[in-house]
Amino acid sequence: MGLVVQKYGGSSVADAEGIKRVAKRIVEAKKNGNQVVVVVSAMGDTTDELIDLAEQVSPMPAGRELDMLLTAGERISMALLAMAIKKLGHKAQSFTGSQAGVITDSVHNKARIIDVTPGRIRTALDEGNIGIVAGFQGVSQDKKDITTLGRGGSDTTAVALAAALDAEVCEIYTDVDGVFTADPRVVKKARKIDWIAFEDMLELASSGSKVLLHRCVEYARRYNIPIHVRSSFSGLQGTWVSSEPIQQGDKKVEQALISGVAHDTSEAKITVVGVPDKPGEAASIFRAIADAEINIDMVVQNVSAAATGLTDISFTLPKSEGRKAIDALEKGRTVIGFDSLRYDDQIGKISLVGAGMKTNPGVTAAFFEALSAASVNIELISTSEIRISVVTRADDVPAAVRAVHTAFGLDSESDEAVVYGGTGR
Amino acid sequence: MGLVVQKYGGSSVADAEGIKRVAKRIVEAKKNGNQVVVVVSAMGDTTDELIDLAEQVSPMPAGRELDMLLTAGERISMALLAMAIKKLGHKAQSFTGSQAGVITDSVHNKARIIDVTPGRIRTALDEGNIGIVAGFQGVSQDKKDITTLGRGGSDTTAVALAAALDAEVCEIYTDVDGVFTADPRVVKKARKIDWIAFEDMLELASSGSKVLLHRCVEYARRYNIPIHVRSSFSGLQGTWVSSEPIQQGDKKVEQALISGVAHDTSEAKITVVGVPDKPGEAASIFRAIADAEINIDMVVQNVSAAATGLTDISFTLPKSEGRKAIDALEKGRTVIGFDSLRYDDQIGKISLVGAGMKTNPGVTAAFFEALSAASVNIELISTSEIRISVVTRADDVPAAVRAVHTAFGLDSESDEAVVYGGTGR
Repeated sequence: MGLVVQKYGGSSVADAEGIKRVAKRIVEAKKNGNQVVVVVSAMGDTTDELIDLAEQVSPMPAGRELDMLLTAGERISMALLAMAIKKLGHKAQSFTGSQAGVITDSVHNKARIIDVTPGRIRTALDEGNIGIVAGFQGVSQDKKDITTLGRGGSDTTAVALAAALDAEVCEIYTDVDGVFTADPRVVKKARKIDWIAFEDMLELASSGSKVLLHRCVEYARRYNIPIHVRSSFSGLQGTWVSSEPIQQGDKKVEQALISGVAHDTSEAKITVVGVPDKPGEAASIFRAIADAEINIDMVVQNVSAAATGLTDISFTLPKSEGRKAIDALEKGRTVIGFDSLRYDDQIGKISLVGAGMKTNPGVTAAFFEALSAASVNIELISTSEIRISVVTRADDVPAAVRAVHTAFGLDSESDEAVVYGGTGR
Repeated sequence: MGLVVQKYGGSSVADAEGIKRVAKRIVEAKKNGNQVVVVVSAMGDTTDELIDLAEQVSPMPAGRELDMLLTAGERISMALLAMAIKKLGHKAQSFTGSQAGVITDSVHNKARIIDVTPGRIRTALDEGNIGIVAGFQGVSQDKKDITTLGRGGSDTTAVALAAALDAEVCEIYTDVDGVFTADPRVVKKARKIDWIAFEDMLELASSGSKVLLHRCVEYARRYNIPIHVRSSFSGLQGTWVSSEPIQQGDKKVEQALISGVAHDTSEAKITVVGVPDKPGEAASIFRAIADAEINIDMVVQNVSAAATGLTDISFTLPKSEGRKAIDALEKGRTVIGFDSLRYDDQIGKISLVGAGMKTNPGVTAAFFEALSAASVNIELISTSEIRISVVTRADDVPAAVRAVHTAFGLDSESDEAVVYGGTGR
């Protein structure tokens, strides 16, 4: 008998009907002879509504109390889901993150899982129960306070529990059919990926693909837990994310040259103009940014103009951090030394991801040729071993993504309709 | 420095504004030099809304899961309240029932507190925090499952914590000004009681007064914790419930001859007609009722008619249990042996409560005279050492309560407006 961990996002359990539908699917997995552990998010918009309430009471709510508040959301959905399963005649017990043994550090609102001790879940399973676990939450190791894991935390809970329980697979049920070669809202001919390696999925996740978050994939890779991303509405086979290609019918799915094209229009670009081209200069800029606790993405320094001894340094960061970064740099102006700052939030990033890139030198050339043919101007370039990313005007992103998708033969043959929407946290 | 436990019901924290208002009141108590522990109910109608959701998913939700669901309500209000207090510049930490050390038995939906181990609260207080505790909930001793205490459970949580922390007083904040000599909705001239002994309050609570529940008063009496029932809206002195009369200004409040008049129209009457008048007969009736887990209130057996050797036995019980009781009796008909059953849900109960009754034989006579003068017909009578109760037609209740209230000199001199509404749980 195998053990399966399933995770259902907020859109799958948005109302009583959704909960009953999900309960049926869970019972099916149990009937197929599996032990089943289910991780569930808060219903629909519950989390956002609770955040609204908190803001009405206090504009800057304390982290510990905000976590206490938000965890009420999963408590509601998990209890209702357990009731719905019992109504179908199967045994079920719900567990909070703390009861499930999800131990975290003490960083409220974005805690990290440091251990999982699922003794109570194991006992419940051995007694014939389906275990229902609140996603997104845990308990801090030192203070025994309730913590939350931040956006995408329920996926991470599922993968961490799958690892601790030595599950065969972690199924992430969402409102899309799986991971696609590009965002189907932009590329009509995007194809569902049958299998993708952890490494490629990690690059897609950090390049703007929203289906799985980087942290969850990273955790799965570390413990080698296969993830199956699939729709809770359609019941079709979705996308497998694992270390080794899967078997599909008679044949093994092969490693694709290119996994997909991701894009991201949530970033802005800051250019620090007229920086003295001498050692320590970049360090002082990024120390100022780091001290303001701002995460940056791409960094590019142009070649220094010999005549002036000055250079420009550009970097990208989430738009939401833009104001804070400008303030931090202005404050450090005398120490850093620069002429001016340029802030640009009309940019987009397009990334091509594929393990095949490592051994195929033609990929980079083909990528730029495709962008050129689509008259897309490139502002920044950054690469990893299995990814090329460029920054362009935001307006150019849709055309650029489609051009690259077609150029690398990723278009599906049919214009099949695909289910796509926002994902739960 | 004294320690004060305050409890706020759902109507006091119905929205963000209510939470901010309550936060100010809590901070005042802290500024007055007290250590403060606050027990809070779920916001407004949250609990009813969660029950609705549960019923949509399953008509008979499992107790364990229903408790898990309902406790989300207090989790929300307590976290918001802690945020609101912090916003006012004071330290606060919220605690679930489990974190606060409220240990219960395993009877879901109506668990009983068996121990309180408030170590974490004590530590939080010593660090200068105001402790905010979720009312109505605990954790079971054997299984470590989340439990709820049933209706009025938050008041019991407050009293139990006050006892465990050796508090000076347990303040129950509600939406009325205190305990009244009668329900002000029925008797315009009802007076707020300044002080009432535990024993009288217990009788009022079991006779239909809704302000405090029997269980909570019983707990306070056992540990001798003074309760101060008062309005969270007006800030006026309310009603003290304790073992010894309080000092008010220069003079001590004296024990009243009569504390008040309570009424209850939530009960029905069942009469078992034509029961053989022989030993064991009543036992077989009430065994059938007890086996169906129905609580009954008054029991009266009429004198047997000598000619037939048959008698009638009447008892009252909550209307909501009526159908179940009739079914149980019909099922036991052959064993019990009776002619017929009469069910009557148009009854009301009026009770006069007062410690003075013990030593004043004129009270009973005056009570019946008042009812007679108001042309109220009496159907059943039951008495305790400090209470007389009668059952009448439901329609007669308002007139009967007013007549008795006036006859015992309980009417206030002015027709002052009083705040009155439903209480939180």
